[in-house]
Amino acid sequence: MLDDDNRLLGKLSCKTRAHERSWQEVAVDMAALARQLLAQLGIAEQDCLKLGIGSPGLIDHLRGEVRYSNNLAWTDVPLVAEMQRHFALPVRLSNDANCAVLGEAVAGAAKGAEDVLLLTLGSGVGGGVIAGGVLQQGGGAGGMELGHTLLVCGGEECTCGRLGCLEAYASAWALIRHAREAAEKHPASAMHALCRNDLANMNGAIPFEAARMGDDAAQQVVDDYIRYLGEGIVNFVNIWRPERVLIGGGISNEGDPLILPLNEYVRTRCFGGQHGRVPHIERAALAGDAGLYGAAAL
Amino acid sequence: MLDDDNRLLGKLSCKTRAHERSWQEVAVDMAALARQLLAQLGIAEQDCLKLGIGSPGLIDHLRGEVRYSNNLAWTDVPLVAEMQRHFALPVRLSNDANCAVLGEAVAGAAKGAEDVLLLTLGSGVGGGVIAGGVLQQGGGAGGMELGHTLLVCGGEECTCGRLGCLEAYASAWALIRHAREAAEKHPASAMHALCRNDLANMNGAIPFEAARMGDDAAQQVVDDYIRYLGEGIVNFVNIWRPERVLIGGGISNEGDPLILPLNEYVRTRCFGGQHGRVPHIERAALAGDAGLYGAAAL
Repeated sequence: MLDDDNRLLGKLSCKTRAHERSWQEVAVDMAALARQLLAQLGIAEQDCLKLGIGSPGLIDHLRGEVRYSNNLAWTDVPLVAEMQRHFALPVRLSNDANCAVLGEAVAGAAKGAEDVLLLTLGSGVGGGVIAGGVLQQGGGAGGMELGHTLLVCGGEECTCGRLGCLEAYASAWALIRHAREAAEKHPASAMHALCRNDLANMNGAIPFEAARMGDDAAQQVVDDYIRYLGEGIVNFVNIWRPERVLIGGGISNEGDPLILPLNEYVRTRCFGGQHGRVPHIERAALAGDAGLYGAAAL
Repeated sequence: MLDDDNRLLGKLSCKTRAHERSWQEVAVDMAALARQLLAQLGIAEQDCLKLGIGSPGLIDHLRGEVRYSNNLAWTDVPLVAEMQRHFALPVRLSNDANCAVLGEAVAGAAKGAEDVLLLTLGSGVGGGVIAGGVLQQGGGAGGMELGHTLLVCGGEECTCGRLGCLEAYASAWALIRHAREAAEKHPASAMHALCRNDLANMNGAIPFEAARMGDDAAQQVVDDYIRYLGEGIVNFVNIWRPERVLIGGGISNEGDPLILPLNEYVRTRCFGGQHGRVPHIERAALAGDAGLYGAAAL
């Protein structure tokens, strides 16, 4: 629940248990949570402007439908129509990654910017774009899947089945996979000790930590990761020329050791060199709440 | 000169000779040509709605400036302001590839479509996008350079200096280069005879012609070209979900042997499979005039 100035008044959550029950039952829970929050805050429904929903999956934002979500096991769910049965308010729906960039633009690290790119580096690579002040959502279900554009045609296999997507190189999982491979090749790497001698314990922070300790193998993993991510960002700069690029997700917690070389990498590689607009790259600000702020602003 | 229904009433052209003289002199010629055309058509300036300019190079459409054009040898040219000294009309400026997709949308193969992608396969790969009925121009100079997004990170060198751009694989020049390489490797290929035994005579039509004659080496060149172009299109579908994808430029003259397998290639490879919107790919309609129609519609 946000006020007119995009301040968070309160939030509630529950598990969807979407694999155990119908989507209609999930929608009943969503409506009940919203009513509970209104009651807690002492706000009447008629004092609300709208209700926004950010959902994972392929969203048809014009029809207000979740076309397909693997996470929720939903196909062709008319979520906006369903929520309008519960509330006499305008209801809007977008993909959760789209909501996240909108959230950062209304209340986070890109406040006031007209042209923004957000990349969220988690189990996948989520992406969202605001161009000329307008949230970009694609013309049909499945748009703005920036993580599923190519970095290397025919390259590493992506979770989507395509070979060489950006997600297969720049997600947290990709970083972990590459760090494990490097550690296996370099038995003396500090990454082994940081994993307590079991590479199953590898996480996205360990190659950065080992690199700070002077470990060459880890530094190479970090350098490669920054190159992959940087090349992906250059692609999107050549398309949208954002003024700000935000990096969110777990890997963004590495801060300057990620963000500073990334700025340096991208600065010199955008099409047109000094003649084109080159963005400033920084950390996203709202973490897991970005989508919540954005959904409210849809 | 176009009327309210986007019908071409007439056109004039002259050489820019931009490398021999100042941009102001080029602008004087542009204004004189426009006045000459008005006189020929018997139309008064005050009966015109606006004046649109499509220019090569990095365009700042918001400021109305050509930020940089290698073709014209222009840097920071305030072309809109200059033309407004000549005409008491609103003047608009965009990149020529952006104008081309707008032209196809108002008067060509994408008439009435809200979400359109145009790729022009010539010496480079030009690209333009209409999303939700709005021409996409990027937030600053140098946007929408779709030919300068990656196909293969670290791959073949592009004219822009980056390694692995789509343009380095899917332009007419790339096709010619790959066809020459294949012919060199296969002395028995029909491409040699079609080049009159001098590979300097290779052009973009020859590998298609040789493939129709049953030449395996040429068929492989064509198949690879369709794969490169198809993968690039899948990238842009995963971003914008256009309803129509238009192919323009010299290579598009190959028609069905290019367009049919390209549709087949893209149909099965977009993110989300059958759940997402998959575009119909067809030839652009307006050839060299697309930019003219589009500039008038800016």
